[in-house]
Amino acid sequence: MDPEAFLDLANQVVKLKMFPYFDIAHSLLCALHVREDLGPGAHAFSRKHPLSCWLSTMLVVFAGGMLCNALLGEPPLAPLKNTPQLVIATIVWYVVFYTPFDIGYKAAKFLPVKLVCSAMKEVYRCKKVYDGVSHAAKLYPNAYVIMILIGTLKGNGAGFLKLFERLIRGVWTPTAMEFMQPSFPTKACIVASVIFVLDKKTDLISAPHALVYFGIVIFFVYFKLSSVLLGIHDPFVPFENLFCALFFGGIWDSLAKILGRGANKDEKGDTKKKE
Amino acid sequence: MDPEAFLDLANQVVKLKMFPYFDIAHSLLCALHVREDLGPGAHAFSRKHPLSCWLSTMLVVFAGGMLCNALLGEPPLAPLKNTPQLVIATIVWYVVFYTPFDIGYKAAKFLPVKLVCSAMKEVYRCKKVYDGVSHAAKLYPNAYVIMILIGTLKGNGAGFLKLFERLIRGVWTPTAMEFMQPSFPTKACIVASVIFVLDKKTDLISAPHALVYFGIVIFFVYFKLSSVLLGIHDPFVPFENLFCALFFGGIWDSLAKILGRGANKDEKGDTKKKE
Amino acid sequence: MDPEAFLDLANQVVKLKMFPYFDIAHSLLCALHVREDLGPGAHAFSRKHPLSCWLSTMLVVFAGGMLCNALLGEPPLAPLKNTPQLVIATIVWYVVFYTPFDIGYKAAKFLPVKLVCSAMKEVYRCKKVYDGVSHAAKLYPNAYVIMILIGTLKGNGAGFLKLFERLIRGVWTPTAMEFMQPSFPTKACIVASVIFVLDKKTDLISAPHALVYFGIVIFFVYFKLSSVLLGIHDPFVPFENLFCALFFGGIWDSLAKILGRGANKDEKGDTKKKE
Repeated sequence: MDPEAFLDLANQVVKLKMFPYFDIAHSLLCALHVREDLGPGAHAFSRKHPLSCWLSTMLVVFAGGMLCNALLGEPPLAPLKNTPQLVIATIVWYVVFYTPFDIGYKAAKFLPVKLVCSAMKEVYRCKKVYDGVSHAAKLYPNAYVIMILIGTLKGNGAGFLKLFERLIRGVWTPTAMEFMQPSFPTKACIVASVIFVLDKKTDLISAPHALVYFGIVIFFVYFKLSSVLLGIHDPFVPFENLFCALFFGGIWDSLAKILGRGANKDEKGDTKKKE
Repeated sequence: MDPEAFLDLANQVVKLKMFPYFDIAHSLLCALHVREDLGPGAHAFSRKHPLSCWLSTMLVVFAGGMLCNALLGEPPLAPLKNTPQLVIATIVWYVVFYTPFDIGYKAAKFLPVKLVCSAMKEVYRCKKVYDGVSHAAKLYPNAYVIMILIGTLKGNGAGFLKLFERLIRGVWTPTAMEFMQPSFPTKACIVASVIFVLDKKTDLISAPHALVYFGIVIFFVYFKLSSVLLGIHDPFVPFENLFCALFFGGIWDSLAKILGRGANKDEKGDTKKKE
Repeated sequence: MDPEAFLDLANQVVKLKMFPYFDIAHSLLCALHVREDLGPGAHAFSRKHPLSCWLSTMLVVFAGGMLCNALLGEPPLAPLKNTPQLVIATIVWYVVFYTPFDIGYKAAKFLPVKLVCSAMKEVYRCKKVYDGVSHAAKLYPNAYVIMILIGTLKGNGAGFLKLFERLIRGVWTPTAMEFMQPSFPTKACIVASVIFVLDKKTDLISAPHALVYFGIVIFFVYFKLSSVLLGIHDPFVPFENLFCALFFGGIWDSLAKILGRGANKDEKGDTKKKE
């Protein structure tokens, strides 16, 4: 591919308008997520508790914005002020839950539809991560951790608000904490945030901004599609295992175990007995 | 009644001062609510955990203001800066929980006292809904959903904070979510918020503002008193059922069932088995 | 001791720089607290969930600032913008959880180290309480309750966020509510906040500010050390019991019981049966 044309394409991706098509795709996947999270009782629940159903869907759709606003001292309700976006989300919610004979839900679950929507959602996610990092960088120019945190939370807010989204539906699952077992989107958002921070704040990345952005979009879309189509769920696992072995005790623990007189032997014994 | 005099009366209701009598009535009912929520263990609990008891009562008394402030990015603690109101709430709490021989509690539960206080609380509630809608309209002039939300939460904040109020007392009841089974006050606040928004933002309501406000006050007081005296708990139920049948699947579900080959038959079967 | 020299010393304590030594001591005790809260599974947990472990430690380290910011409508994430402090906390966390053969943890638990750190943490706590009271007084000059609340929460934020800190680790213990059984640090912070408010806002305390501050530092350190060394956990208990007997029903309840026809007899009977 011609590099000039490639850069042009990248620039166009950066400037892509999100409203309304990407918003529709995002809302659709969020509503599907809520419906699937409800399990086999979804049909009965949506009939009995429409208000709770609507609210939890809205919370998922606007999760990133609300969560980041709350953490940055801005009004958590502000994302709802975008009336057209709210109307779209509500229509999509209605279509997924209440169309006669469940046509809407079935159409949304149809693989090609889902595939296109997933790809669009990933493009949207990338924009959100970038917006989050930029916004945090404006507020706290030297706080890298806040930038990465906000980028990640904005990109995958729904994952972190899952607890509260379920609470609105009267379900409390304290062990479903995103921080404990970060899902792939969370990890991808962390990586993307780090890259954006490096791009913004240091000279380590010499490529033009549009290319970096486009690269992350491709990375997001590629892994999402391979997850949907091929079932590859987490390409980060080997790197994580390596990192944990090097820095979070893996090697030293093994060494201590092999030596047979490791300092934390007794403790480990206790743990095993408990389990 | 003379319409002139009626409008005069309405104008006076709009300008009614809330402090201190309406605050006393509101605090009294909140403290009673906390005490009844504690059940038969209330006496022992108030002796063993006075701090937790005081805090959860204050949270109920100032629920609306705190919740709305939190959601609009304003200081959640700000309602406590009104020292006279706080002092009144504390005195009322003390009277309800700690007077010798439980005189305070018994006096507060005496029907005529409770009736008058309930009526006053409803007048107060109407003012709070109106204030909430106005405040949200000032911040987000075009976000109707935020106005309705803030009006509702300000009018019945205690209902939505019930979970946290109980958490302060060490009790966690995730299924007691107000959104799942909205109580009558919540529904009334939603309706009142919608009417205030229509009155403020559109020309659909041609009556003068004072009359609209007064009408809602009467509506609130009337249904509260009929709930206390006659046990009519929710006059919205028939409308809701109609609305749900029309828009949230009722008719289509029945149709699908009758046809015997409805699109969502299998799913329903699953649901039934689960239940 | 020469009073002049004493005042000089007090003035120096007031101006003491907290960074970096006091921050290290504070972070160290926080990380130890998290590790001990995890119990015998700490070793396994820190290997399996490093992100969750790090986040909950950071939440404990920055608890006071985050909680107070959230309650005063300021950005809850703002305390993290102090990068050097964050780096120190992260290093300390790493040392406590991941050093080979658990050297870091063992060194930190060595009594003299812990003792010095505890004393330093109490000096830091006093500064935080004072900062909290001052900050709240600037925002709400007449709201004494808010000043006391913010002083207390800033001084012992970790106690109040324990619920959320555990939630990040996937553990939910709604009965571990600090308000229900306030620990000694919480009570000490309340007392210190009240004294600071009296010192700031009234003429009741005629001693110079530095002496008041120094007195509270000594009080904090003294009781912390006696708690670590001698096991004296709560010197407030007798005062509390007296206060509860006088104001929260103690005497009247006994009187009612003795009279045999006390107003709340039946209720008490109910309570006992339930228990």
